[in-house]
Amino acid sequence: MSKPYKTILITGAAGRLGTELRRGLAPLADRLRLADVAEIKDLQPNEEAMVFDLADEAAVTKAVEGVDAIVHFGGVPLERPWEDILDANIRGSYHIYEAARKHGVKRVVYASSVHAIGYQTLEAHIDTDAPVRPDSLYGVSKCFVEALSRFYWDKFGLESVCLRIFSSFPEPADRRMLWSWLSFEDCTRLVTASLTAPRVGHTISFGLSDNAVKPVDNGKAGHLGYVPQDNTERFRAKVEAEKPPVDPKAPSTLYLGGWFVDIGHPNDEASK
Amino acid sequence: MSKPYKTILITGAAGRLGTELRRGLAPLADRLRLADVAEIKDLQPNEEAMVFDLADEAAVTKAVEGVDAIVHFGGVPLERPWEDILDANIRGSYHIYEAARKHGVKRVVYASSVHAIGYQTLEAHIDTDAPVRPDSLYGVSKCFVEALSRFYWDKFGLESVCLRIFSSFPEPADRRMLWSWLSFEDCTRLVTASLTAPRVGHTISFGLSDNAVKPVDNGKAGHLGYVPQDNTERFRAKVEAEKPPVDPKAPSTLYLGGWFVDIGHPNDEASK
Amino acid sequence: MSKPYKTILITGAAGRLGTELRRGLAPLADRLRLADVAEIKDLQPNEEAMVFDLADEAAVTKAVEGVDAIVHFGGVPLERPWEDILDANIRGSYHIYEAARKHGVKRVVYASSVHAIGYQTLEAHIDTDAPVRPDSLYGVSKCFVEALSRFYWDKFGLESVCLRIFSSFPEPADRRMLWSWLSFEDCTRLVTASLTAPRVGHTISFGLSDNAVKPVDNGKAGHLGYVPQDNTERFRAKVEAEKPPVDPKAPSTLYLGGWFVDIGHPNDEASK
Amino acid sequence: MSKPYKTILITGAAGRLGTELRRGLAPLADRLRLADVAEIKDLQPNEEAMVFDLADEAAVTKAVEGVDAIVHFGGVPLERPWEDILDANIRGSYHIYEAARKHGVKRVVYASSVHAIGYQTLEAHIDTDAPVRPDSLYGVSKCFVEALSRFYWDKFGLESVCLRIFSSFPEPADRRMLWSWLSFEDCTRLVTASLTAPRVGHTISFGLSDNAVKPVDNGKAGHLGYVPQDNTERFRAKVEAEKPPVDPKAPSTLYLGGWFVDIGHPNDEASK
Amino acid sequence: MSKPYKTILITGAAGRLGTELRRGLAPLADRLRLADVAEIKDLQPNEEAMVFDLADEAAVTKAVEGVDAIVHFGGVPLERPWEDILDANIRGSYHIYEAARKHGVKRVVYASSVHAIGYQTLEAHIDTDAPVRPDSLYGVSKCFVEALSRFYWDKFGLESVCLRIFSSFPEPADRRMLWSWLSFEDCTRLVTASLTAPRVGHTISFGLSDNAVKPVDNGKAGHLGYVPQDNTERFRAKVEAEKPPVDPKAPSTLYLGGWFVDIGHPNDEASK
Amino acid sequence: MSKPYKTILITGAAGRLGTELRRGLAPLADRLRLADVAEIKDLQPNEEAMVFDLADEAAVTKAVEGVDAIVHFGGVPLERPWEDILDANIRGSYHIYEAARKHGVKRVVYASSVHAIGYQTLEAHIDTDAPVRPDSLYGVSKCFVEALSRFYWDKFGLESVCLRIFSSFPEPADRRMLWSWLSFEDCTRLVTASLTAPRVGHTISFGLSDNAVKPVDNGKAGHLGYVPQDNTERFRAKVEAEKPPVDPKAPSTLYLGGWFVDIGHPNDEASK
Repeated sequence: MSKPYKTILITGAAGRLGTELRRGLAPLADRLRLADVAEIKDLQPNEEAMVFDLADEAAVTKAVEGVDAIVHFGGVPLERPWEDILDANIRGSYHIYEAARKHGVKRVVYASSVHAIGYQTLEAHIDTDAPVRPDSLYGVSKCFVEALSRFYWDKFGLESVCLRIFSSFPEPADRRMLWSWLSFEDCTRLVTASLTAPRVGHTISFGLSDNAVKPVDNGKAGHLGYVPQDNTERFRAKVEAEKPPVDPKAPSTLYLGGWFVDIGHPNDEASK
Repeated sequence: MSKPYKTILITGAAGRLGTELRRGLAPLADRLRLADVAEIKDLQPNEEAMVFDLADEAAVTKAVEGVDAIVHFGGVPLERPWEDILDANIRGSYHIYEAARKHGVKRVVYASSVHAIGYQTLEAHIDTDAPVRPDSLYGVSKCFVEALSRFYWDKFGLESVCLRIFSSFPEPADRRMLWSWLSFEDCTRLVTASLTAPRVGHTISFGLSDNAVKPVDNGKAGHLGYVPQDNTERFRAKVEAEKPPVDPKAPSTLYLGGWFVDIGHPNDEASK
Repeated sequence: MSKPYKTILITGAAGRLGTELRRGLAPLADRLRLADVAEIKDLQPNEEAMVFDLADEAAVTKAVEGVDAIVHFGGVPLERPWEDILDANIRGSYHIYEAARKHGVKRVVYASSVHAIGYQTLEAHIDTDAPVRPDSLYGVSKCFVEALSRFYWDKFGLESVCLRIFSSFPEPADRRMLWSWLSFEDCTRLVTASLTAPRVGHTISFGLSDNAVKPVDNGKAGHLGYVPQDNTERFRAKVEAEKPPVDPKAPSTLYLGGWFVDIGHPNDEASK
Repeated sequence: MSKPYKTILITGAAGRLGTELRRGLAPLADRLRLADVAEIKDLQPNEEAMVFDLADEAAVTKAVEGVDAIVHFGGVPLERPWEDILDANIRGSYHIYEAARKHGVKRVVYASSVHAIGYQTLEAHIDTDAPVRPDSLYGVSKCFVEALSRFYWDKFGLESVCLRIFSSFPEPADRRMLWSWLSFEDCTRLVTASLTAPRVGHTISFGLSDNAVKPVDNGKAGHLGYVPQDNTERFRAKVEAEKPPVDPKAPSTLYLGGWFVDIGHPNDEASK
Repeated sequence: MSKPYKTILITGAAGRLGTELRRGLAPLADRLRLADVAEIKDLQPNEEAMVFDLADEAAVTKAVEGVDAIVHFGGVPLERPWEDILDANIRGSYHIYEAARKHGVKRVVYASSVHAIGYQTLEAHIDTDAPVRPDSLYGVSKCFVEALSRFYWDKFGLESVCLRIFSSFPEPADRRMLWSWLSFEDCTRLVTASLTAPRVGHTISFGLSDNAVKPVDNGKAGHLGYVPQDNTERFRAKVEAEKPPVDPKAPSTLYLGGWFVDIGHPNDEASK
Repeated sequence: MSKPYKTILITGAAGRLGTELRRGLAPLADRLRLADVAEIKDLQPNEEAMVFDLADEAAVTKAVEGVDAIVHFGGVPLERPWEDILDANIRGSYHIYEAARKHGVKRVVYASSVHAIGYQTLEAHIDTDAPVRPDSLYGVSKCFVEALSRFYWDKFGLESVCLRIFSSFPEPADRRMLWSWLSFEDCTRLVTASLTAPRVGHTISFGLSDNAVKPVDNGKAGHLGYVPQDNTERFRAKVEAEKPPVDPKAPSTLYLGGWFVDIGHPNDEASK
């Protein structure tokens, strides 16, 4: 059976999740093209690598040539001063989408984030149609790309899945992650489903494992066919022993974004 | 323990699903009365058979006499010229409901179809209250019977369950069926639940196995107690090897009705 | 300024509303073609008339030739035995839609009825997306045409507006009509809006004047641009003086369909 | 690992569920303080007991001193004359909440009941935001406490979970309980989740095991992390053999409250 | 034309709104029976008066004898210590409803209050089905009567309209009242509509004039036929000149309940 | 009576709407500070002007100093190449918000656009919570500012109203504007309401006059108190005489964005 794609470009391929995806997505394409600002040294036979900055439009355009799907996990992964967010996440993602349009890429899977909706509450149990509530400039940039990718689908027919990943780490590191965790294996399952579902059009999906606490309703992404297999119960005793209980009235407990809601403006922070 | 029903009439009993239901519903009634336009030769001791056309009101009325539940799976099972749809599905189903009213039948389980909502999209993730969107004259006839049965419940107290069956075949035959499949065993479970739930009033339920891709939300049929046990994962590799990927932008991928949306008017087709 | 249509066919043109529409729609077309089972004798210069039965497919097809819009108000206007409903409203409306498709008619305005949703309650304040709840075989036939016309739009691009007219009479005749009344002038406004709105696709609209009691929410038909100008306040004193108060617990008070919910099966009634 | 609470007060501790909770909640607190109108004789080393009436405000205030969580399952457990409901459930629960406020209790878990929504139907599949529909003065008192506890959260920051328990018995005793059952183990799981969830604010949750028939949608309590482990399938054959089928049209089948909807006014009943 | 009612009992008849209603409701009944704890001295020919406390069940029962509708505006009209709320609003309203049931009263119009939903926000634009959020013990007592009256409708068929009156004063006294005002004339219109609508079952309606700022959606009370005629624009300049702007971030600006959300527990306040 | 604001900054003050707002907003502030890339020569006594580019952060910061409200109508007003959109609308608006935060501005009124939701349909009748569907890079930039302003409210307490203006011109210029028109006077009313409502938090409002065709539901902006006074009926005859009917099936008729959905990528267009 032939693989669904010839060449998948993974941006942010040297990052925490990018590294996982190199292994997890190998069965889906003849070739993985890895892009990052950092060099990747352990290239596998099915891989090729390119080092460049997403703000460099020419480099991005070149990297997208010959690609039929993009897994766009690159860019700044947390709150940073405006200029960094602007270059890497806003300008960089525009470069990706515009290159994808020019080169006829079929589908883009984008690492959006819970921080696009970080000021929504657990108790609201929102679905993926709820209005955005970014908790950071980082989150605002995720909202920008969600809107941009919607535009590229509606006008140019470029399919996208925007994954609002909550907390994807080797294991839950604190009490919040007992409900916000997305295991690496489930993350791979989610990206795989996004790449292989018969039609995605423009889809937003939350990125969570099957944890006991259910903060949101992912029903409107049901056409992806994502079935999480992990949950945090096996880590519960350890986390609860090591980490003190949270304050139920603290903003970081109330809001989906967690401690992101507590940080100030990044340009203020940077000047401290 | 006595069985819930004395005599269940199964229409379309010689058909694909009718044949399955003969075996599956045997535990629910002392006697199964089998109706079809075709003769059934392998009658079991608990069965009796009648051969007639649903358009024949007198024959239908006679067949319903002494019956306390009807599993109405008869009629034209796919797109056909208007006159056939009219006779078998519209007039025929009216005959069934009117006979059921006259003879005091308690409950009817009707094989409606995904084609009553074939122009709804997967991405809409509709529930059973969403407006109808038939994709064929066949689908229009299903909408008619859903409305008719609602009327017989609201005014005459005759309970009905309308099952919007997606694709019930021995196994998924193409990529669409990887999400639209209803296994025969789950079909039997669904009809059984419909016949034994404490109260159904007038209920519409989707008919799907527990496949990974979830196209619709069946929560409003939760009082039936239907718990699907099958899914298509064990067929996935085979189907994906044998069938080419679908075009994500094709109407037959976008809409729940699949290839039904591609066919023209049946009276045109018939004249080709 | 040229008129929006060349020839509008009005079915049921000899009826109560048809007669009003002859006058009201004259400004919209060069020519009105009037169809009815009864002969119309007072033809105006802009009118032409045809006498035939909607169940006669050949006659319908002929009447639709050369027409660019149809105002389909013909058929049985209240509860009748099944055979009458079947012939005039089900078969007859199919003939209209199929002829419209064959002759390239642009838009159909159909007189649906509150009786398509007669078993919905005032207190539910439904909108036009709520599931149908017919209160009569007459109402079931209206549901059929709503589904049929949806199909003709989704598959063949034939635009339709289905008007769920409540009570269109010269003046409110009982206490229920104090809230269910649609004045003749507002009826004409509603049909005119349906014929001239820039796009209707397939639209369902309630048909009511601007009465104080608001039983339903017509917001989803807001693209028609219908602005009612009448209400029943000037009739209130007279009606309340002449008609006794209703029983708040009677089904005919509870349900939108009024006294239609009290009548039995028309075939029983016919045999009385 | 230290326990989440120092002292939990359980009211109604001598009752059916209270007895279960003594065992089930032991792991959550250093000490359980048991309150009831009846004396409890089998005190365990981690337990202390107090005998008093909830209508006695001074006694309640004293019992709450030194407590950091309250599991309030005391009061009249079924329909009773107004004066009893008033004293035990309305005045008694006010005493509990006011004492909790004065003594700085962190969280209250309250045994509300399906009878707060007993006149909602299975077919409506309500969620926890649906309007209350009490089926008894008992149910009205549950609505009162749900509103009172909401007030204590919104104004004074006292967290509460109101559990609308359906039928918590050793095993399903009739056909209704096949869908309304909450096993004792699941009841303990639900109270435990309510006491240990990171934040509850004011949450209403249905109390049901994972039975096949799903009468309601508990999604908006998903932040509790309650995962039921039991269902009634293993009791089905026995119950169906012993209990006759229900009448699908009986009010006690239609409404969530079951036979509570059939009983008259308790003060009438008391005078019989 | 005969009047709709023979005798209407108005409780709280000596109060601000009660006094208005004496005049406004005169056309609706042959006789008005006025009840209050205070004596009413200016009795009109169509009026009779009774002085008693709502907590006195025997007196209430006597006052309801011979009455066919009750306009229940009596009780404590603002935040007060628990014992007062309990006696006048909770016990008192129970007495009213129970007497109404015993004496076959047809309809009750109850003065509920915005304070039943005082912790909902303007920006939420709730409708009348939204969950209660009382801002005071006074508000909790309003929630209690809304639930109690629902019970009396569902089980005993006693119709009720609960009016969530916002601010009914001679004219808007502060900036909040520019949107929360209900003129006396509109109040009378609303009570009149509630008494004369063909069916109310159990209805909750907001009580507001047609002010420019629309804080809530009253569509689900559309069957009352209430059409407000007043608004606050003619008072705007005066109020804005006399009253300083509000703080947009203050809780009393955010929440529907206004300054009620700022007051503490009434039993604390009483002891100050 | 003192004015609500000391100094309002109007950006885009030399533009079509900016010119109107100079006159319309004069009563709301002691002083209007006018900003534009073009020089304004007809300064009134209450006005001062500054000429700068929004991409110049230092100039923006300086212009915001001493201002207590901003009416941000500046930036690129229609589709343009990415670099222009990026500089004027994305970077420029960030500069405005960041300067507003630093200088303690109380409220910002932002000219968002229908093009943020241009790919939503009339028939969907969306409200302001519906997901964004930009029809252009221009529309994407509007989505960016809506998300950015939400962030500045949620985290820094800076109030904003985002006005999704449809078509604000002297009079309706084509058939689409018969429903999409916002008169200049209504535009001024809407901005005035946004500046004077007691609390706006972060509000999105559609910007439309009271035209007969209602494409959207603005109920969730009801706390602004905007009451449109104009509609297009007086222009209808003229427009319909001059402009040909639209094609009901054209994308520019279907979608709210009108002809914006027909234009290609602006960078392609620019290179033509």
